[in-house]
Amino acid sequence: MEKTKPIELLEKIRAVNPLIHNITNIVVANFTANGLLALGASPVMADAVEETAEMAKAANAVVLNIGTLNERIVDAMILAGKSANENDVPVVLDPVAAGATHFRTETAQKLLQEINFTAIRGNASEIANLIGMKSKIKGVDAGETNLDAGELALRAAKELNTTVVVSGKTDAVSNGSDVYLVHNGHPILTKVTGTGCLLSAVCGAFLAVEKDPVTAAVSALVMYGTAAEIAREKARADLPGSFQIEFLNQLATLSAEDLEVYGSFEKKAGIIQ
Amino acid sequence: MEKTKPIELLEKIRAVNPLIHNITNIVVANFTANGLLALGASPVMADAVEETAEMAKAANAVVLNIGTLNERIVDAMILAGKSANENDVPVVLDPVAAGATHFRTETAQKLLQEINFTAIRGNASEIANLIGMKSKIKGVDAGETNLDAGELALRAAKELNTTVVVSGKTDAVSNGSDVYLVHNGHPILTKVTGTGCLLSAVCGAFLAVEKDPVTAAVSALVMYGTAAEIAREKARADLPGSFQIEFLNQLATLSAEDLEVYGSFEKKAGIIQ
Amino acid sequence: MEKTKPIELLEKIRAVNPLIHNITNIVVANFTANGLLALGASPVMADAVEETAEMAKAANAVVLNIGTLNERIVDAMILAGKSANENDVPVVLDPVAAGATHFRTETAQKLLQEINFTAIRGNASEIANLIGMKSKIKGVDAGETNLDAGELALRAAKELNTTVVVSGKTDAVSNGSDVYLVHNGHPILTKVTGTGCLLSAVCGAFLAVEKDPVTAAVSALVMYGTAAEIAREKARADLPGSFQIEFLNQLATLSAEDLEVYGSFEKKAGIIQ
Repeated sequence: MEKTKPIELLEKIRAVNPLIHNITNIVVANFTANGLLALGASPVMADAVEETAEMAKAANAVVLNIGTLNERIVDAMILAGKSANENDVPVVLDPVAAGATHFRTETAQKLLQEINFTAIRGNASEIANLIGMKSKIKGVDAGETNLDAGELALRAAKELNTTVVVSGKTDAVSNGSDVYLVHNGHPILTKVTGTGCLLSAVCGAFLAVEKDPVTAAVSALVMYGTAAEIAREKARADLPGSFQIEFLNQLATLSAEDLEVYGSFEKKAGIIQ
Repeated sequence: MEKTKPIELLEKIRAVNPLIHNITNIVVANFTANGLLALGASPVMADAVEETAEMAKAANAVVLNIGTLNERIVDAMILAGKSANENDVPVVLDPVAAGATHFRTETAQKLLQEINFTAIRGNASEIANLIGMKSKIKGVDAGETNLDAGELALRAAKELNTTVVVSGKTDAVSNGSDVYLVHNGHPILTKVTGTGCLLSAVCGAFLAVEKDPVTAAVSALVMYGTAAEIAREKARADLPGSFQIEFLNQLATLSAEDLEVYGSFEKKAGIIQ
Repeated sequence: MEKTKPIELLEKIRAVNPLIHNITNIVVANFTANGLLALGASPVMADAVEETAEMAKAANAVVLNIGTLNERIVDAMILAGKSANENDVPVVLDPVAAGATHFRTETAQKLLQEINFTAIRGNASEIANLIGMKSKIKGVDAGETNLDAGELALRAAKELNTTVVVSGKTDAVSNGSDVYLVHNGHPILTKVTGTGCLLSAVCGAFLAVEKDPVTAAVSALVMYGTAAEIAREKARADLPGSFQIEFLNQLATLSAEDLEVYGSFEKKAGIIQ
């Protein structure tokens, strides 16, 4: 993957304004919509069973987020996901807090069975849960496993037969054969709710303009992490209120030069498969 | 309509703090409540079928927004709208993304049949959809028709027998005979989610203190667009995060002088009816 | 209660990051999560009947908020509350707009019957409604009674057999015998939606690290009001947008020195019981 890909894809999103259909939770719906708008994408939130198949068909990407689930919304997600699959629309899963309750774990498994996901993004605990590994989960934010992010992404991508994005201090992306590591980002992201959820939606926006899921996901992570680093610099201290606003500003104004200077990713070699 | 009406009505809202009952979507509920509070109104969100009729009766205006619909909420909206009609409480429709799915189009029609709306506010695509005109709709934000905003507002107001507000580069308001154009506003409003939804709620606040729907809506648009222009100046660049915060500040602090200097509207003459 | 308690408990929250399970409304979910994160707590929102009992058991505190109720969510709250009671997890009630509709009043009574609350936080109108006193209620924000806050808190605490927090110009906390008054806070808090709801969640965070409900609640109020005072100073004027952001910053950065300088509470003497 070329170093200029994140720039190229960001410019494409800003030029074509892909429509991203989100079925998401009540906590992050506003931040997700504002983040996608700032980026140049066109968000739509619709979660009624009467309309999700139709909306998914019209969208350029679909993002399913299980943050505040209920039975009605799970049905709406399955309809949206199946419609996306039938119409060749990329579809992303964000398994928020999978493992925290049996309902979340089972819902995530049900979605994995019914829908072919183009990509799955979660933190290490959530991804570990999807493949039946035990890990400590606390709420929706934390989550640590003993496995290295790259190894976890690779193993999950193989087992789930899709592209897996593991977010953390270092992010990892794997399609089951290649593994990429992304070094951008800032810890203050964990002090603003919905930054993981928005990242999944942003992966959807990149998938809308790039066929290869690994290229799309790595580009999304580099762009997102760079925006966070610059926003943190502008906020001057660990101020989660100011950071949240600056981060939206950066998603809207991030330049090719910023991505050239800050962007940092690598293809991991020597993975034992 | 006198040039000082927006000032007069804004001061009235700040003095009497009208209670605005919103049935709205999960994306914009927070921004709508904060915008109404900043303006001086008193927002309440309640969407349970068990209580919407009672809440609507107690309110000074009701605003129905179909942004994230489901069957339960449609029932709650009909109960609220009928109660508002019975109790002479003004009621506003925001037909978010009408035309984007059959469910939205049909729900909007159902609400139009069951409820007498005091005013309807949408972008050109949404309004065109309500009167059966075809238009391109993409997501919830964009939407263009070939019709001039003033002509569209006039035609829709006649067909729907109410006051119609068409938001866009130039806003238009018509009650089926008169047409007003409002020239305030700024394109960055389209980069913050819920600015259209909040505008509908703000129309509700103005209707709560002014009987004539055209006067109320034009005043709301002038005030809202002026706040946006000043907020954009304060944000110094097209920064959607900073703009969102400055816009709330402006809704709270906008002065009579600001409205005198910035306010720009006209009665359109020579409409071919 | 020692003057240094608020500092001690704030530091404990930042050290142990208690998991706070919120069942809350669509208006304030985002602000509540961001406020808890800024404070150092770990928020989780989950409102499906399939999972609330399990989530409540895993949490360090549960906060039930009736802001945008429906039948499904009431069931989920009862399951969460009963589970919290069985597992010795503190549980807080925020009876948003109790009294505004029969449904809210009845739901609040139902929750009081089914669940043993560790603390209840509301404005004067809401608390008065819980004990059958008439008061004017307008929307969800305002609310005045003729009773002094301290007397109201005492009376409600006795009748409801729990710790009651009455928010207002002066806040009052009572467990039915002692009464504390807290003098921190700023009126601009009433111009940002969800500041009451977040305060209830913050009470949950303090209850997670302190067994005595009065000590926890008074500490929460002192900390919260101090953060508001400093944030208002930083915002330089009554700007609700800027204040909202600065307030999140202050929740994250408030120091022991700030609490020493600003913190102001007293034990009320001579209450006629």
